[in-house]
Amino acid sequence: MSKKILVIPGDGIGQEVTTWGKKVLETIADNYGHQFTFDEGIMGHVAIEATGEPLPAETLEKAKQSDAILFGAIGHAKYDNDPTLKVRPEQGLLKIRKELGLYANLRPIKLFDDLLQASSIKPEILQGADILFFRELTGDVYFGEKKRSEDRNTASDLMIYHKYEVERIARKAFEAARTRKKKLCSVDKANVLEASRLWREVVQELAKEYPDVETEHMFIDNAAMQLIKDPKRFDVVVTGNLFGDILTDEASQVAGSMGMLASASVGDKVGFYEPIHGSAHDIAGKGLANPLASILSAALLLDISFGLQEESQRIIKAVDASLRQGFRTMDIATKHTENQFLLGTEAMGLKVIENLT
Amino acid sequence: MSKKILVIPGDGIGQEVTTWGKKVLETIADNYGHQFTFDEGIMGHVAIEATGEPLPAETLEKAKQSDAILFGAIGHAKYDNDPTLKVRPEQGLLKIRKELGLYANLRPIKLFDDLLQASSIKPEILQGADILFFRELTGDVYFGEKKRSEDRNTASDLMIYHKYEVERIARKAFEAARTRKKKLCSVDKANVLEASRLWREVVQELAKEYPDVETEHMFIDNAAMQLIKDPKRFDVVVTGNLFGDILTDEASQVAGSMGMLASASVGDKVGFYEPIHGSAHDIAGKGLANPLASILSAALLLDISFGLQEESQRIIKAVDASLRQGFRTMDIATKHTENQFLLGTEAMGLKVIENLT
Ligand SMILES: CC(C)[C@H](C(=O)O)[C@@H](O)C(=O)O
Ligand SMILES: CC(C)[C@H](C(=O)O)[C@@H](O)C(=O)O
Repeated sequence: MSKKILVIPGDGIGQEVTTWGKKVLETIADNYGHQFTFDEGIMGHVAIEATGEPLPAETLEKAKQSDAILFGAIGHAKYDNDPTLKVRPEQGLLKIRKELGLYANLRPIKLFDDLLQASSIKPEILQGADILFFRELTGDVYFGEKKRSEDRNTASDLMIYHKYEVERIARKAFEAARTRKKKLCSVDKANVLEASRLWREVVQELAKEYPDVETEHMFIDNAAMQLIKDPKRFDVVVTGNLFGDILTDEASQVAGSMGMLASASVGDKVGFYEPIHGSAHDIAGKGLANPLASILSAALLLDISFGLQEESQRIIKAVDASLRQGFRTMDIATKHTENQFLLGTEAMGLKVIENLT
Repeated sequence: MSKKILVIPGDGIGQEVTTWGKKVLETIADNYGHQFTFDEGIMGHVAIEATGEPLPAETLEKAKQSDAILFGAIGHAKYDNDPTLKVRPEQGLLKIRKELGLYANLRPIKLFDDLLQASSIKPEILQGADILFFRELTGDVYFGEKKRSEDRNTASDLMIYHKYEVERIARKAFEAARTRKKKLCSVDKANVLEASRLWREVVQELAKEYPDVETEHMFIDNAAMQLIKDPKRFDVVVTGNLFGDILTDEASQVAGSMGMLASASVGDKVGFYEPIHGSAHDIAGKGLANPLASILSAALLLDISFGLQEESQRIIKAVDASLRQGFRTMDIATKHTENQFLLGTEAMGLKVIENLT
């Protein structure tokens, strides 16, 4: 198979971790005789520094020409500390999501057996949890009109949904539920928000086409609680952009650590793959970041964009093997457990590659 | 002391639990020689059934005339299942919050020692956690303009904040932090939302007046994760209406169970006290609900609205004693623990009253 992959490392630890996602893809290409050609693009703070823009036209053009994109992370403390700055790294990510029509963000939450102790949640609560989130990614309050009054004392964002936006993401979620435990939970705040009432109406309507899927509706506040109280009750979860952002970060505790979670954004054509974790400036450049989320993003890329299930599973097995051998980055190390070997980014990346071959 | 208390049981288990919040207040009045007179008001689904309106004028009038309000819960499956209904129970709660100017919702999260095992989170993560949430309660996307297009295919809610709204709640949070561990965490989504950028600017500005308080800013997605990963890192948390709704429900796992959490809504004049839990229709009327959140709401009422710290502490001690004696409602019972006695609502309420005297 011959494919063009664009790597966008982005900011902070994005640089370090995508190195390993990419190396894993190269190793797979070698092992299975595929032709992957790689190009690189800039986005976020690094792009603002270089060009003044968070998403340079060149990066977007490369993205459109590629068969799949491996992305790192975005964001920088400078902007977090100064909310008045007009040009911001995150605008790059939001723009590329919109431009590429990446309306469905899939975030699988599954614990590797060896990380059962790494979470703050009790092992007996976690064991067997397996959730697939569908987060809507190109609508909601993220993309509704933003306003600031002239005296700067009033600010607003429009939370808005159109029926077709809800329908297309919900349909993907229903289809996925069919291939799993046939349970769908739609999360909204329909007791307060009109956008959520539309969301609920559309999902209710669509549910009639999927009588084999058990559909429930849950308020976001309750969902945020249930996710921790009893993660096993969920199979597929579908929700809006903002609620999805919050729930999936929270769900990282169900998977042991944020450093383990990959996500796939799909929609019109090109797929976009990225860790759920952010740019983590506190540890950036120190070689401490966990590369596994980027490596697992590469696995999702092979599976979803290229249909290479076997190669994808191979990567997941190599990650699993590395964990079983006791190798841990800082974020997934457990206190008081024997036979654990603490590794930095590079050493962990190399372990996975070793286990791939 | 002579005071007028309005009891609004509301919907579902609200009826059962406020009975015990009220009885506890009566017992305190007897024991300490106070004159509490009680009146009752209707709100929510029960009010819609009786009058067509979720908040009848009579209830609002009584509320304004009272010295404090003890509220139960709101909501009914009928409306949750039909998002097209125009008149909805929750409108009553939102309206009374707005009319009484209850802009600050205080939600203390603290684990009773004996409930260390009741949570899905590991005991060593929880032990010592003590968080005070300040949730803004009369602004945000809850109260911004709601719209539905004529073809009903587009729906929106305006997420909007004014500087003065952020300032007054943040000030309360800073003041509270001063009396505690002097740490304030403000939660927003300033990397995406304009309303959050205003929020962050205002809190940053105010922080200069409180140099003795260590202030940090955190994105909501990260906060939803940190709350479970390391709840001890938080002291006082201040956030907007929507994010506060989500985080405090989630935080119930830090307190062992939702059934233990009380909240105080204050602002202009009258204080309003309610459990964080909802109307829980699945168990309503069965005598299974945990009355402790309502009882602890009564304790907050005495402390905050009447300045009766001793009486308030007396209630908390009685709850603690009941737990230490091994009494548990369904929601806080732990599997495989000896010396636990499972009680229904009434028996648990009676235990607390016994321990009060
Ligand atoms: C960086 C930020 C804009 C982004 C989001 O909120 O979507 C991130 O948190 C994510 O979840 O991908
Ligand atoms: C019932 C609902 C309107 C309410 C809210 O969202 O504010 C509740 O969840 C709460 O937290 O008090």
